[in-house]
Amino acid sequence: KHIRMGNLPVDTLRPLDPDTFAADSSAVVDFLAGYYRDVDKYPVRAADLEPGRLRKLLPDAAPEWGEPMERILDDVRRDVLPGLTHWQSPTFFAYFPMNASAAGFAGEMLSVGLNVVPFVWVASPAATELEGVVVDWMARLVGLPDRFVFSGGGGGVLQGSTCEAVVCTLAAARDRALRGIGHEGIVRLVVYASDQTHATFQKGARLVGIPPANFRVIRTTAASGYALTGNAVRAAVEDDEARGLVPLYLCATMGSTGLGAVDPVRELGEVARRHGMWLHVDAAYAGSAAICPEYQGYLDDAELADSVSMNPHKWFLTNMDCCCLWVASPATLTAALSTYPEYLKNVDGPAGGAKAPPAGVDYKDWQISLSRRFRAMKLWFVLRRYGASGMRAYIRRHVAMAEWFERAVSADERFEVVAPRRFSLVCFRLRPPSTDQASDDGGVNRELVAAVNASGRAFMTPFVVDGKFVIRLAVGGAMTEMRHVRDAWELLQRTAEQLLGQR
Amino acid sequence: KHIRMGNLPVDTLRPLDPDTFAADSSAVVDFLAGYYRDVDKYPVRAADLEPGRLRKLLPDAAPEWGEPMERILDDVRRDVLPGLTHWQSPTFFAYFPMNASAAGFAGEMLSVGLNVVPFVWVASPAATELEGVVVDWMARLVGLPDRFVFSGGGGGVLQGSTCEAVVCTLAAARDRALRGIGHEGIVRLVVYASDQTHATFQKGARLVGIPPANFRVIRTTAASGYALTGNAVRAAVEDDEARGLVPLYLCATMGSTGLGAVDPVRELGEVARRHGMWLHVDAAYAGSAAICPEYQGYLDDAELADSVSMNPHKWFLTNMDCCCLWVASPATLTAALSTYPEYLKNVDGPAGGAKAPPAGVDYKDWQISLSRRFRAMKLWFVLRRYGASGMRAYIRRHVAMAEWFERAVSADERFEVVAPRRFSLVCFRLRPPSTDQASDDGGVNRELVAAVNASGRAFMTPFVVDGKFVIRLAVGGAMTEMRHVRDAWELLQRTAEQLLGQR
Repeated sequence: KHIRMGNLPVDTLRPLDPDTFAADSSAVVDFLAGYYRDVDKYPVRAADLEPGRLRKLLPDAAPEWGEPMERILDDVRRDVLPGLTHWQSPTFFAYFPMNASAAGFAGEMLSVGLNVVPFVWVASPAATELEGVVVDWMARLVGLPDRFVFSGGGGGVLQGSTCEAVVCTLAAARDRALRGIGHEGIVRLVVYASDQTHATFQKGARLVGIPPANFRVIRTTAASGYALTGNAVRAAVEDDEARGLVPLYLCATMGSTGLGAVDPVRELGEVARRHGMWLHVDAAYAGSAAICPEYQGYLDDAELADSVSMNPHKWFLTNMDCCCLWVASPATLTAALSTYPEYLKNVDGPAGGAKAPPAGVDYKDWQISLSRRFRAMKLWFVLRRYGASGMRAYIRRHVAMAEWFERAVSADERFEVVAPRRFSLVCFRLRPPSTDQASDDGGVNRELVAAVNASGRAFMTPFVVDGKFVIRLAVGGAMTEMRHVRDAWELLQRTAEQLLGQR
Repeated sequence: KHIRMGNLPVDTLRPLDPDTFAADSSAVVDFLAGYYRDVDKYPVRAADLEPGRLRKLLPDAAPEWGEPMERILDDVRRDVLPGLTHWQSPTFFAYFPMNASAAGFAGEMLSVGLNVVPFVWVASPAATELEGVVVDWMARLVGLPDRFVFSGGGGGVLQGSTCEAVVCTLAAARDRALRGIGHEGIVRLVVYASDQTHATFQKGARLVGIPPANFRVIRTTAASGYALTGNAVRAAVEDDEARGLVPLYLCATMGSTGLGAVDPVRELGEVARRHGMWLHVDAAYAGSAAICPEYQGYLDDAELADSVSMNPHKWFLTNMDCCCLWVASPATLTAALSTYPEYLKNVDGPAGGAKAPPAGVDYKDWQISLSRRFRAMKLWFVLRRYGASGMRAYIRRHVAMAEWFERAVSADERFEVVAPRRFSLVCFRLRPPSTDQASDDGGVNRELVAAVNASGRAFMTPFVVDGKFVIRLAVGGAMTEMRHVRDAWELLQRTAEQLLGQR
C-alpha cells in the first residue's frame, strides 16, 4: 500500500493529522495565555536592539529533519521574545494601538484553519456573503450614509491595510478620469492631502503612477486644529486647474496619525464635488470611535465622499490585519480592478454566478490581489462576542483614560498639551525653558521620550509639528487599564524632574 | 476603583484575559480538529450555491450584547460551513492547492497572538531578522543564485500574494526607467508576458499606470509546451523599440496556472538583459518543487533575473497568506517604495537604525503597505517542524500521485493528456468524438467536470487552450492520499461512461 520514494515512505508526513494538530495548537494556546499573563513584565520596547543578534543565533540553513513543537517554542521564548516590542503590553502607547483580543484571535484561527480562499463568490459563497454582512454591520455602527451599504447601491470589502484601500480607490479614480482624457493625461492628474495625512497616501499615489510633482501637500495650522480647510483646498485646486492640470483625488482624515486631527468632511466634499475629484475619508484609527453616538457626526458627513476606510485592527479588537473599505460606486472600483482569466470561467457559469450583491460579488475585483483570506470571520467574532455595547464601553474606557491623562498634563505647569485631544491620543511636551527654544530640535523632550522608552516601562513615539517636538501618548491597548496610564504619567514626571534638574 | 460611563462599568470587557483566551481558543482548536477529522465527509465544493442564502440567515445589524463562544461556533457549523468550498478536503483538485498544516497553523497563531507589527526594524527587531533568515533559507532550498540572498547583495521579503510582488517590482522597474526618460515617458513603457501568464500580471501592470495598450501578450503553442520562447519575445521587443516604445518588464513563469508550463528563464534573461528590461520569475506554485534537486535547474537559471517570487501558501504547507519575493537589487525596490513620515523619525535615531542588512531593513519599504504581519513565524515553524527532507517527501508524494493519474489517463483510450505534466498538475480531456470537434465549446468535457463537481466527491476546474476545453487535476492537498486520486479517476471514468452512453 505504501508508495516509496528513495528510502522515505512518502506518506510519513501527515500535516493535518487531527491529533498532532490539536497537540501542537494547544501548546501554542498555552504559550500565548502565559504570554498575556506576563506581558507587563517584559520591557515593552524590544530589550535587545543589537542589530543582527537574532541572525547570529540562527543557523544559515533550514534544518534537514523535523523537530518537536516544544523545542521550537523554547527557541521562540529564548531567542525571539527578547527582540520583540510588545505591542500588546498594557504600557504600549506608541504609534497607534494594534488590538488583539480573544475573539479576534478565535475568529482568525478559524479562518486560518479552514484556509479557504474566497477570491470569487463561487469559491466559497458563505465567506463572501459573511464579508458583505459584516461590512454592512460596521457601516451602520459607525454611522455611514446608506450609499455605502450594499442595499444602498454601495458596498464594502475587507482589505489588509489603508494603503491597499488608497491604492485601489486611487486606481478607480484614475481610470475614471483617464477614460475622459486618454492615458497620456496621467501626467496631468493631481492629488491633494494635508501635511498631516498619512504617508501611505503619497506612497499609494506614486504606486498608481501619479507623478510625484503632482502631490499637493497642503499646510495646516494650529488655528484649524491641524485640519484641512475647504478654502485651502479650493485655492490649490483652482491654481492647478488654471495651469491645465486635472484635480483627481482628495484625501480627508478622521484622526490623523501625528495629532489625531479631523478634517471637515462635508466642507471638503463640497469642494471635491465641484471640481470632479474623488473624496476618500481615511478613518483608520478614529473610525472605531464613531461607533459611539458622541463621535458619529464625523462620518455622517461622508454623504459627499466616494470612499471611506477604517482599520478594525487598530482600535477595534480585531487582530492584524483588517481594514474596512466602503465605496459608493462598486462599479467604478471593479472597472479598475477586475480580471477574468480563462481558468476562472466555465465553473458553474461565468465567474460570480448570480449578480445580486453581495451574493454575486467577486471580491478579487475589489482589491489588489487575486487571492485573499477569509477576514470576515474575525470581525464577525469580535462583533458577536463583545456586541456593540461592549465595544462602545471599550472605546469609551480608553477615551476616559486619555481625558484623565490630558487633565493631568494640563495641571502640571511644566508641561503643555500641544494639539486638541479628540479621541484617545494626547500630544504633549515639556514647555521649552525660553521663547527662543519654541522651535527646538527636541531638546529635553527628546531626552524625555528616549529615557522613558529605555526604561522598558512605557513606550511612546514622538512627532514634530510647527517645529515643535511633541510626545504622543496613544491609549488603546486591549490590556491597558487606568493604573497603566497613571504609572506612565508618574514615570514621565519623575524622568522630567531628573532631566530638568540636570540642566 | 471602577470608572463608570453611564450604566456600564467600563472595565467589564477584558479582551485578553488569559483564562477566557485559553477557553475560547481551545474551543476553536477542538472545532478545527473535528473539522479535519470529518472534512472528507463534506461535499468538497460548497453544497449550497444559492445566492444570498447566508445573508438571509443573518440579522441586519450587529448584536447589541456579547454572546458566548459556543453559540458563535454553533452558527459557524450550521450556517457557514455548508456554504464553504473545502479547500483542505483531500478531494480538492481545483485551481491550485492552498496548503494548511499543523505547523503553519501553529506559527500563524503565534504571530496572530503576539500581534506585533514589524513595519520598521526597530518596531520589533527579531521579527524583521527572522524574516530575513527564513527568506534566505528558502532561497537556498529552491536553489536561487547568491545574488538573491542578503549576503550576496540581494534579499527577500514575505508578502501576501504574487500580485503584490508583481506590483512592487513593476513599480521599481518603472521608476528606474522613468528616472532616465521623465515621468511623461510612462505612456511609452511596455510589459511582456505570455498568454499563459497569470492574470495578476496584467492587473499589476494596470495598477502601476502602464497603459493597457502596452501589455504584450505573446502567444504560446504546443510546440514549446506552451512556454514563451526567447525568439518570440525578441521579435515583440524589437517591434516596439522600432516604434519608439520602451521595453520595461518581462514576466516568466515556472509552472503556469492553466497548464503548469515552464518558461525558459535563462533564454528570456538574455533577451531581457540585452534590452534593459526587468525580468521577474513567477514561481508561485511550482517554486515549491524546486526544493527537490530534480526540479532545481529551473531556478538556477534565475542568474539573469531581477526578481523571483513563489508562494509557500500554495504547496508548502504554509497557511494563507505567504509569498516570498526575492530581488537582486533591494535599493531599486526601496527607491520606489520607501517613505519617511515624521512620526517614524527620531525613535532611536533614524528609522531602521543600523543599516547592515537584514538587521537594518525596514520592510515597509519592500512592500505596498506600511503595516504588516509577522509572517516569518509560520514559514519558520513549517521549515523547523517538517525539515527540508520532510518537505521534499511531501512534494514528491504529490508528484508521484500526479504521475500515477497521468499514466491512468494515458492508458484509457477515451481520454488524452493535453499538455506535458511537469509537477503535480495533470491537464486532460475526453478525446473529441470526431476531428471537427477538435475545437469544441467544451461539449462532453464541460458536462463531465460539471457532473464530477456536482457530486461533491471531487472538485476540479477547467481551462481552455488552443480552443480545447481541458480539465485540470491539481494534486497538492495536505490530506490528499493515493486513494483520493484513485477515487477521483474512478469517478471520472464512471461519469464519462454515463455521459458517452447518453450520446
